[in-house]
Amino acid sequence: MQSSDKEIVSKVQHKIDFKTKPLGALGQLEEIALKIATIQQTLSPELTNPHLVVFAADHGIAKSGVSKYPAEVTPQMVLNFVYGGAAINVFCKQNGLNLKVVDAGVNFDFEENLPIIRQKIGYGTKSFLTDSAMAMDELEQCLAKGRELVNQISAENCNVIGFGEMGIGNTSSASVLMSKICQLPINECVGRGTGVDDEGLKHKISILTEAINFHGNINAPFEILSTFGGFEIAQMVGAMLQAAENKMLILVDGFIATSAFLVAHAIEPNILDYAIACHQSDESGHKKMLNYLNISPILQLSLRLGEGTGCALAYPLIQSAVNFLNEMASFESAGVANAVDSSSVNSKQSAVIN
Amino acid sequence: MQSSDKEIVSKVQHKIDFKTKPLGALGQLEEIALKIATIQQTLSPELTNPHLVVFAADHGIAKSGVSKYPAEVTPQMVLNFVYGGAAINVFCKQNGLNLKVVDAGVNFDFEENLPIIRQKIGYGTKSFLTDSAMAMDELEQCLAKGRELVNQISAENCNVIGFGEMGIGNTSSASVLMSKICQLPINECVGRGTGVDDEGLKHKISILTEAINFHGNINAPFEILSTFGGFEIAQMVGAMLQAAENKMLILVDGFIATSAFLVAHAIEPNILDYAIACHQSDESGHKKMLNYLNISPILQLSLRLGEGTGCALAYPLIQSAVNFLNEMASFESAGVANAVDSSSVNSKQSAVIN
Repeated sequence: MQSSDKEIVSKVQHKIDFKTKPLGALGQLEEIALKIATIQQTLSPELTNPHLVVFAADHGIAKSGVSKYPAEVTPQMVLNFVYGGAAINVFCKQNGLNLKVVDAGVNFDFEENLPIIRQKIGYGTKSFLTDSAMAMDELEQCLAKGRELVNQISAENCNVIGFGEMGIGNTSSASVLMSKICQLPINECVGRGTGVDDEGLKHKISILTEAINFHGNINAPFEILSTFGGFEIAQMVGAMLQAAENKMLILVDGFIATSAFLVAHAIEPNILDYAIACHQSDESGHKKMLNYLNISPILQLSLRLGEGTGCALAYPLIQSAVNFLNEMASFESAGVANAVDSSSVNSKQSAVIN
Repeated sequence: MQSSDKEIVSKVQHKIDFKTKPLGALGQLEEIALKIATIQQTLSPELTNPHLVVFAADHGIAKSGVSKYPAEVTPQMVLNFVYGGAAINVFCKQNGLNLKVVDAGVNFDFEENLPIIRQKIGYGTKSFLTDSAMAMDELEQCLAKGRELVNQISAENCNVIGFGEMGIGNTSSASVLMSKICQLPINECVGRGTGVDDEGLKHKISILTEAINFHGNINAPFEILSTFGGFEIAQMVGAMLQAAENKMLILVDGFIATSAFLVAHAIEPNILDYAIACHQSDESGHKKMLNYLNISPILQLSLRLGEGTGCALAYPLIQSAVNFLNEMASFESAGVANAVDSSSVNSKQSAVIN
């Protein structure tokens, strides 16, 4: 994967600095505008046909009581997505994102007429407490299917894509991936998920410690992913890698989506050039993931929902970054004065700021 | 001013808690939804005809070198607003806010045909270094004109309104208002505004200290406002008070707009029931203002621009709060299971979360 070509950066920065505002006054929106313009290699970037893809799958580890909810709610929530009743439906509809729902490996047979993208690898992973979550050929299928789907969406003139997930037990999977990739003790990577209590949290840490000890020394990203991942997480890894290769902007959601991004980043560090962290989740551990990647989230709304909701909610702000770059008057275009270059003051029509 | 009637709160909270998501999983959006529903006294609130009003005025204190920019840029930026080239134009257009620009006291005669609301009290305030910024009757005019404008806008079926400002020197005014209302030493209330350097900052603190000492013991909100305020700030105070009386949702922007809100709050503490802090500015001091008011901002994007940009950028998230409350499936409406009340489990169509 190529790093994005940085030659254009100084030109974009010049365009940003000569907008009618004090230097740097649009804060994080300026960084976002710079990133998107650099990905697209243009001073006038555009976001086209934005998509949000939710990958769903079940997890063998859910049988060990690591979640507050039984595995049955994975298909139930998939149906809620399909019928339009979930939070992600509401936010995608509001902000104009095209929502796709993928069965990456749910333990349920959905009716054929439902608008679900069928990429089922199996009826849930094996429990990584006693087994590898998936076989290496299943992982390869996941990566290939994730990539293929992104290519199809990319062909529909989409250049910005967010990824969400649904899968009871997947905060456990994400915690172990984080622990392995970031090389942090598991207790720093485990949180309450959908809301386990103190005892539940203790149990979750104990189960995950047992699993990590069982598998011993595993360090290669693909091996970590096949051993502890989920079908939805692995498909997301493939999807993220392909999105970056297609020079699309990747919207990174919460704890689980970021665990997928951590794996993708371990495989291809340049993926960071193509990604924006949309929201810092309330799930403890997510902040440390973002610190590890050295990226700042756009939002901190104490969400802990997943589904891609952070991406859908942050989208208008990303659009705002593009819009100010394209639409605000510049000192040059308006022939107005500027603190950056006060030699070009035109007293009649100069315009700056309070 | 009445506090909003809290009897409905438990019903709204019940509606929020029975949406198809874990309890509290939408974080700050849940608090916003609860506030708006309580203001509007309905389980199905709506945001109608949103407005953003930018008040502009000049400040006598600007002559003392407290800003990086000369006072001439106040009218220049007003013209930039009128011609659609400023950041606030771009964000209001994107997010569907109706933008109004008010001349509250700019030191300039704008052409009559320009779409500027004429509420000029004078050609800028007097310098509060040696004088009261405005006379008490000028303050009364400001408050009345701010109120009247909000009533006009309210009559157009608007129930959500943000306020922005433009006025070279107005961070100085806002800093002193903050110091007086929050009873904090002036050096904790002064920041770099549009970007003064270390020496400029020292000078700004020294000038403001001199001004505070000159006026001596002033504690009543209206007296603080007339002595140290600006015409745009005072009109904003009147506008905010009227908006709350009309049971509109008030969107609070950055450092200067929040200084107006501090004064309004000192006059009518119940105004907090009607307000949302949209953005925590990078201007040092703003965080302390929000702490004093005990409100959490929606955004922290390191903006330091004013103009109401924080309000316009936060608006889609406020709309998202309303939308999830109105549009998400509930456990009851969908007949699905819920962790809050697991006795009503319907195994066929239950839907919860990962």
